[in-house]
Amino acid sequence: MNQLQAAFYEGNQRIRIGACTPVPPGASEVQIRVSYCGICGTDLHVFHGAMDHRVHIPQVLGHEMSGTVVTAGASVQSFAPGDRVTVRPLAPCGHCPACHAGHSHICHNLKFIGIDAPGALQSLWTVPVHTLHRLPESLSLEQGALVEPIAVACHDVRLGGVASGEYVVVLGGGPIGLLVALVTRSRGARVVVSEVNPFRIKLAREFGLDVVNPLETDLVQKIMDETGTAGADVVFEVSGSAAGAEMLTKIPRTRGRIVVVAIFSQPPKIDLFRFFWRELQLRGARVYEPEDFEAAIALAASGSLPLDRIVTAIQPLEALAEAMHELEGGGPVMKILVRCAES
Amino acid sequence: MNQLQAAFYEGNQRIRIGACTPVPPGASEVQIRVSYCGICGTDLHVFHGAMDHRVHIPQVLGHEMSGTVVTAGASVQSFAPGDRVTVRPLAPCGHCPACHAGHSHICHNLKFIGIDAPGALQSLWTVPVHTLHRLPESLSLEQGALVEPIAVACHDVRLGGVASGEYVVVLGGGPIGLLVALVTRSRGARVVVSEVNPFRIKLAREFGLDVVNPLETDLVQKIMDETGTAGADVVFEVSGSAAGAEMLTKIPRTRGRIVVVAIFSQPPKIDLFRFFWRELQLRGARVYEPEDFEAAIALAASGSLPLDRIVTAIQPLEALAEAMHELEGGGPVMKILVRCAES
Repeated sequence: MNQLQAAFYEGNQRIRIGACTPVPPGASEVQIRVSYCGICGTDLHVFHGAMDHRVHIPQVLGHEMSGTVVTAGASVQSFAPGDRVTVRPLAPCGHCPACHAGHSHICHNLKFIGIDAPGALQSLWTVPVHTLHRLPESLSLEQGALVEPIAVACHDVRLGGVASGEYVVVLGGGPIGLLVALVTRSRGARVVVSEVNPFRIKLAREFGLDVVNPLETDLVQKIMDETGTAGADVVFEVSGSAAGAEMLTKIPRTRGRIVVVAIFSQPPKIDLFRFFWRELQLRGARVYEPEDFEAAIALAASGSLPLDRIVTAIQPLEALAEAMHELEGGGPVMKILVRCAES
Repeated sequence: MNQLQAAFYEGNQRIRIGACTPVPPGASEVQIRVSYCGICGTDLHVFHGAMDHRVHIPQVLGHEMSGTVVTAGASVQSFAPGDRVTVRPLAPCGHCPACHAGHSHICHNLKFIGIDAPGALQSLWTVPVHTLHRLPESLSLEQGALVEPIAVACHDVRLGGVASGEYVVVLGGGPIGLLVALVTRSRGARVVVSEVNPFRIKLAREFGLDVVNPLETDLVQKIMDETGTAGADVVFEVSGSAAGAEMLTKIPRTRGRIVVVAIFSQPPKIDLFRFFWRELQLRGARVYEPEDFEAAIALAASGSLPLDRIVTAIQPLEALAEAMHELEGGGPVMKILVRCAES
């Protein structure tokens, strides 16, 4: 029998690998053997202590995962041991105004599993059954761990209303920006990615994406040239940078749509005059709804996304802290998966 | 015969009253005897020299008007001398990407008649026939001069998607904010106006509107109390103030809609994190489309708006400069009409 392990965040960039304490599933819960868990930008924020007010140290992080059901609670009918699954890690309260309005994914009291509750970076993980989505046989468990970030991208693209034939710009070519661009392309739209990191630029170009380094190329001019001076139909702000906040009003067409995906920890200056002048539209997009997970699974299973190449490394649980530092280094890395238990 | 007069802006807060030079209408134009012309915030901007790059000094200003057709051009079939009309003062180019996209009201090369071309503050005014809207007999010419700003409000409320029963906040209770609130109420929505000017507060309250002075009352708390902590369905930013820019992200519900109506000459700081967190939506709204003029005329003719009380003074053309100073004084004034010719 393999040893059951867990990675505990213990504050201030400290990760301790220790024994996983399996939690017996309640009536509406399942226990999952976690195969892979991806590392997300949010995990990096937690690692650096920026979210210590939300986590409970020692805290198991992680929410981009794949695994297999080990035990199902007494009331669980829709899933059984052996089922390959991923988890939509949201636990809404069910009774706040957002939940009543049908926006439970952004519930006023939302618990994000992996931040506000123990996460997937452990061998055995117990979660409510309502969070599960089944992985088809055609999807490997490695690929299944990418469903969560693909669902983010599917949500963003859906809220952006991207239609076939539209001209779309993605500001920022990290994992989410890249997936937004790939999902956009899968919808039949023309997409341009703006990114400054050389490795990210190279990788995105290998995927056949049109990538511009705005420090070298005049992005506004390129877009105006390619749209007959109309501007872009849709702009996704995934960089979280002041440069992105400034760019986002310069490039959309009249009534163009802007989707804010990135987290801006400080309010940037925004050209509201341009919103008025061009009747621009902006909306924020956060996490996902169940249909976005289903769309992500279908898209991943279609084989049309270069998922295996987005994963630039698979590391053992013991290498978690090292992997986190690597992700921050700006080097040749896109998505790192962590192996949590033997499949 | 009455003397034909015009008010000429001559730069730096100078207005000269001189002779109106009637322009014979071209084939698709009409000449109108202007009865009344309201003074708009944009006219004040021009008066102060802020738009000297657009006007051609000496420039006749004015675009909120009512009048009667005097002469119709050779090709004009839909209007005849004696018709009571107002003008939608937009001259789009017809061939730019915005025009092709069906957004000719925000054409890339839009000429705004009254800024980029001679305006209505004169006895006889010649305009393209496509700008005309007929005024019904039930609407006085004084009221007819309010159709243009009411159309702005109808456009804003339409783009905000205001529905019956919704909770709406209007930040700013000047002429446009007040009209947005009144149009919102006419759509069956609950509306709260935020305003600091005592006269504007008093007038809006006399119209039965719920008005809050945010310097005295905690607006956020009031809205949360009244919406069961949900927040407002729709927020209109009509103040153009830094305080408004800060407030606009604090009060909407999840996926609440924000409409930017005001002109922000400097980009304010905007809390994009809140857009992400609550999936807020924002759109700019500028001028109007033909259907907004028709909606404004129908609403004005319904008699349900307190139009006669929104007009706080009617002045002769000679008093234009004085009226402009009065509008800036923060005193007991809402909308001033200028009498341009005898009806």
